[in-house]
Amino acid sequence: MTGWISIVGLGPGREDLVTPEVTATIAQASDVIGYIPYVARIAPREGLNLHPTDNRVELDRALHALQLAAQGARVVVVSSGDPGVFAMASAVFEAVEKHPEFIETDIRVLPGITAMLAASAAAGAPLGHDFCCINLSDNLKPWTMIEHRLRLAAQADFAMAFYNPRSKSRPHQFTAALDILRDECGPDRLITFARAVSTPDQSLRTVTLGEATPDMADMRTVVLVGNSATRRIGRYVYTPRSAQ
Amino acid sequence: MTGWISIVGLGPGREDLVTPEVTATIAQASDVIGYIPYVARIAPREGLNLHPTDNRVELDRALHALQLAAQGARVVVVSSGDPGVFAMASAVFEAVEKHPEFIETDIRVLPGITAMLAASAAAGAPLGHDFCCINLSDNLKPWTMIEHRLRLAAQADFAMAFYNPRSKSRPHQFTAALDILRDECGPDRLITFARAVSTPDQSLRTVTLGEATPDMADMRTVVLVGNSATRRIGRYVYTPRSAQ
Repeated sequence: MTGWISIVGLGPGREDLVTPEVTATIAQASDVIGYIPYVARIAPREGLNLHPTDNRVELDRALHALQLAAQGARVVVVSSGDPGVFAMASAVFEAVEKHPEFIETDIRVLPGITAMLAASAAAGAPLGHDFCCINLSDNLKPWTMIEHRLRLAAQADFAMAFYNPRSKSRPHQFTAALDILRDECGPDRLITFARAVSTPDQSLRTVTLGEATPDMADMRTVVLVGNSATRRIGRYVYTPRSAQ
Repeated sequence: MTGWISIVGLGPGREDLVTPEVTATIAQASDVIGYIPYVARIAPREGLNLHPTDNRVELDRALHALQLAAQGARVVVVSSGDPGVFAMASAVFEAVEKHPEFIETDIRVLPGITAMLAASAAAGAPLGHDFCCINLSDNLKPWTMIEHRLRLAAQADFAMAFYNPRSKSRPHQFTAALDILRDECGPDRLITFARAVSTPDQSLRTVTLGEATPDMADMRTVVLVGNSATRRIGRYVYTPRSAQ
């Protein structure tokens, strides 16, 4: 029996944002591997082995998936959002690169609704023009690189989406990021803090950069920054399609 | 009876990439408005009025949706992919801004699987690190702005996704874009041409910038450019999570 790995995105949280493709694939799985809160979203059933693991063990988890698939298992690796955006897809390919004996594994990546697009939809359309997407965590890259990208993104007049804006272990960095944005974009630029979008805990708050404070974000927040044309219309925030 | 507008994303093409939220919303609609090929994806049924319109009439289409909702209709505006990414969501808010009598309309945006994430999943994980998303069409912005963004995005070492890379009316611009990318990123950078992802016409091709030619893209193609660390592993292309 031939095993396989499907790396799937569960979307931002609500079940009706999970694609039928992902639901059908989970129904065929023998094993589900992922971070504890994501595996907790999978309904237990007979014959399905759940392997919840802690955060920050992505490569171990990926290797475990490859080993199980080599034994014939039908392995679903779960991410929230989209698995290709700061999630498990790259980790699995990194593991294959380190362990080339698994190069022939049947690996598929199944897209999901990523947090920034769910957040953008909930707010209106703040990402309606050219935009960029930056992970503000410096776990896997130097903070100086993040600062460089923020400045260039502002100079390009991109709308921006930030994942992992703030954590307890690095409380000062988001303060620095906001300072850079104010410096490059001025105090009137709109910024949206979208927390736990599509879950019962959802909250949305749009302010100007001049009003923004670091405590408006936590690790469940996606932050969206408008470009120079982003505006409010009624309760919505949107970025026009056209630019001069 | 109170009308509403839901601006929904149908995903890149295959039906199992449409979210259950969108499917349920279409089932409640009295009217579906959108570009001809997207409305063609909606199954006709009694009591459902289909309003297919031509390309480049986004604002007329948006105003029509607002007028119908004001008369009590339950209007679904369809986009392919995600409605917030170079699609109908911004157009509807632009129409509200021009016609403030519709400001109280109940408008919702329902996210979908956008083309770049479906393409990235099909290729592996080329957008697995910070990235940007640029519409290469100059219908709604000057070409000089696009060139400026391409250079800054390359200098930020973003992976990149391009929508609308090439059309018959502007065949030389994608040539110019490739020249800028080669100039900034060198000839060895990986570029993936993902055409009609998730449809029967799907094709995927990854080459280096040195090998890339403009005819590899058309209007059904999403183009993904790696960052400086993007690599091949077996038949996959991926960008590592970490950077130095």
